[in-house]
Amino acid sequence: MLKRYLLAPGPTPVPPEVLLSMAAPIIHHRSPDFIPVLESAKNGLKWLFQTKNDVLIIASTGTGGMVGAVNNFFSAGEKVLVVNGGKFGERWTKICRSYGLDVKEIEVEWGYAVKPEDIESALESDKDIKGVFIQACETSTGVYHDIEAVGNIVKKHEDVLFIVDAISALVAHDIKTDEWGIDIMVGGSQKGLMLPPGLAFVSVSEKAWKKAETSTAPRFYFDFKKERESLAKNQTNFTSSVTLIIALNEAIKLLQKEGLENVFKRHARLAHATREAVKALGLTMYTKESPSNSVTAVEAPEGIDGQLIYKTLREKYGITGAGGQGKARGKIFRIAHLGYADTFDVITAIAGLEMVLKSLGHPVTLGSGVAKAEEILMR
Amino acid sequence: MLKRYLLAPGPTPVPPEVLLSMAAPIIHHRSPDFIPVLESAKNGLKWLFQTKNDVLIIASTGTGGMVGAVNNFFSAGEKVLVVNGGKFGERWTKICRSYGLDVKEIEVEWGYAVKPEDIESALESDKDIKGVFIQACETSTGVYHDIEAVGNIVKKHEDVLFIVDAISALVAHDIKTDEWGIDIMVGGSQKGLMLPPGLAFVSVSEKAWKKAETSTAPRFYFDFKKERESLAKNQTNFTSSVTLIIALNEAIKLLQKEGLENVFKRHARLAHATREAVKALGLTMYTKESPSNSVTAVEAPEGIDGQLIYKTLREKYGITGAGGQGKARGKIFRIAHLGYADTFDVITAIAGLEMVLKSLGHPVTLGSGVAKAEEILMR
Repeated sequence: MLKRYLLAPGPTPVPPEVLLSMAAPIIHHRSPDFIPVLESAKNGLKWLFQTKNDVLIIASTGTGGMVGAVNNFFSAGEKVLVVNGGKFGERWTKICRSYGLDVKEIEVEWGYAVKPEDIESALESDKDIKGVFIQACETSTGVYHDIEAVGNIVKKHEDVLFIVDAISALVAHDIKTDEWGIDIMVGGSQKGLMLPPGLAFVSVSEKAWKKAETSTAPRFYFDFKKERESLAKNQTNFTSSVTLIIALNEAIKLLQKEGLENVFKRHARLAHATREAVKALGLTMYTKESPSNSVTAVEAPEGIDGQLIYKTLREKYGITGAGGQGKARGKIFRIAHLGYADTFDVITAIAGLEMVLKSLGHPVTLGSGVAKAEEILMR
Repeated sequence: MLKRYLLAPGPTPVPPEVLLSMAAPIIHHRSPDFIPVLESAKNGLKWLFQTKNDVLIIASTGTGGMVGAVNNFFSAGEKVLVVNGGKFGERWTKICRSYGLDVKEIEVEWGYAVKPEDIESALESDKDIKGVFIQACETSTGVYHDIEAVGNIVKKHEDVLFIVDAISALVAHDIKTDEWGIDIMVGGSQKGLMLPPGLAFVSVSEKAWKKAETSTAPRFYFDFKKERESLAKNQTNFTSSVTLIIALNEAIKLLQKEGLENVFKRHARLAHATREAVKALGLTMYTKESPSNSVTAVEAPEGIDGQLIYKTLREKYGITGAGGQGKARGKIFRIAHLGYADTFDVITAIAGLEMVLKSLGHPVTLGSGVAKAEEILMR
């Protein structure tokens, strides 16, 4: 017998209350039964996104939301700036290019955060740039980019949209959509929101809606204008993901009960404990600056394959963390503390890691990482 | 937010596969649909009890099974021997006396196991004794009584029944019902079997069925002869606990997949790690000899109320262990490793205990108990 622990940066575990809500019979998405369900989800998402604007609910993964953030607001040939500091920065570039946009990249070394002044000088020196694309948390490197600082820069440019992929940062980080001037922010269900995969959430500012009017990119499924019109009637454009939206209401209820400030504090506390425990084991963070509250990326010790650490944790101890992506594959492993995560998820991850490292022949003092985690977590 | 961990000696956590099976629609207990369900449960229980005899399935807690083990086989005025080494030994005495039996007790100091030779001499010196009642695991003290040794003694007495309360020992300990001459063995659903509370299981030997014919104790609900007749037709005497019996089949499927030997080894391994971790923290076992594989009973350190340790674990860390019962209340706390339990349940319990002890001002080196547990669990 092997109990399973899901400590990956998405999908994340779903709380029992939410699982139970999904056992309810299906209701019809065009029937009056569904109106209050969608209305409640709409209001809950506004609260979570810290925005007065509507947040669209799309039946897709987070990537679908990212696609919509491109094909509804830009046109082929238009110039945009993409912060590329990892696998998901790369994805912005790929999506933009697939719609014929002229992408200018700010390449950031993996493990580092973008320097906001680099964005400032790019916008100053090239007035053709019409959008800045960034990740809040770059999941592949565990870096949190300073969204507030970048937002304050982009704000100054009336004809530039600020587009944030907050898929893995939402719930774990305090992101003030309206206050920081985020025009389009994308979230996903299977991360901090503690839901199964299948929903993308996208907030859109008035500034972005205005620009949308000029966009000529082809679109059909991710047609945000139609989604907006449907949302005004507490509907979605195509068939609503009824069960996932019922679950979304349950998840938001849990977050509201805890309180947004406490939710952020919990994630910061778990991330801090994980990082310090990992360092106490003599390991080196892969994230060199601005580590996120969502996921901790750690360098595999000299001579040990990072994928082997991931695999041994999973197969011997039932703990599903994550390995490395792209060029970090083999060099790192990652442990998430995102969503339905608490004290003993960190303890489990660190205890598992201690046993795995020892069994792979790496010198480690059993209990030393856990001791550091406990010290922080019991405060 | 506080995640919950159930590490009590019953009820114990129910595995997801079993929870899901209970979401199936109710079927009627007298319809043909139910016949194969009950037949499967009957066969599964024989396998688990290591017996060729039928195992009755009663809609009650384990205590109901204990009552039936008295009122179906004995008569008022008959003399029986009860091993009383804790709260559940006391319960045998109370049940026997409530049916007018003449109880002779072997009192065993709490935390110690009965000396089989004491039972031998009692049976030798008093030929009126017609039954020996014992616990396999005395849940209140964490002691496992040597059922094999006692069974071999009682076996020699043709007119004495051997009755074992294995409620908290079943699944955690290898108990060979037929081989060891156990005439009546009682189990419960909410312990090692990983089910919700609500079912008692009772195996009955031919020797016991023969004695039952002479019993004059009043009975109606716990009428084992009628249950036996119903069981032969894959039925129960009264309404079957349909959902719990469906779940029973799922739980047995999980145990069969793991294999009985592996199930026992897992419990022994978890119990061993828990005991050694507790000792590494400088604590003293309350169980002075023959510790069970089901639950570990630990003395609260000098000056700290055992109930406060239990309460702090629960309220601050979400871990529901157990305090002390009866005269052990306040002096001890208990941690179970029973049923759906694995490596990180032990780690969670020990890490939680370390933090609780430290926060209560007890000198403890954080991580030292966990280190010892890891050392044992990674073998």
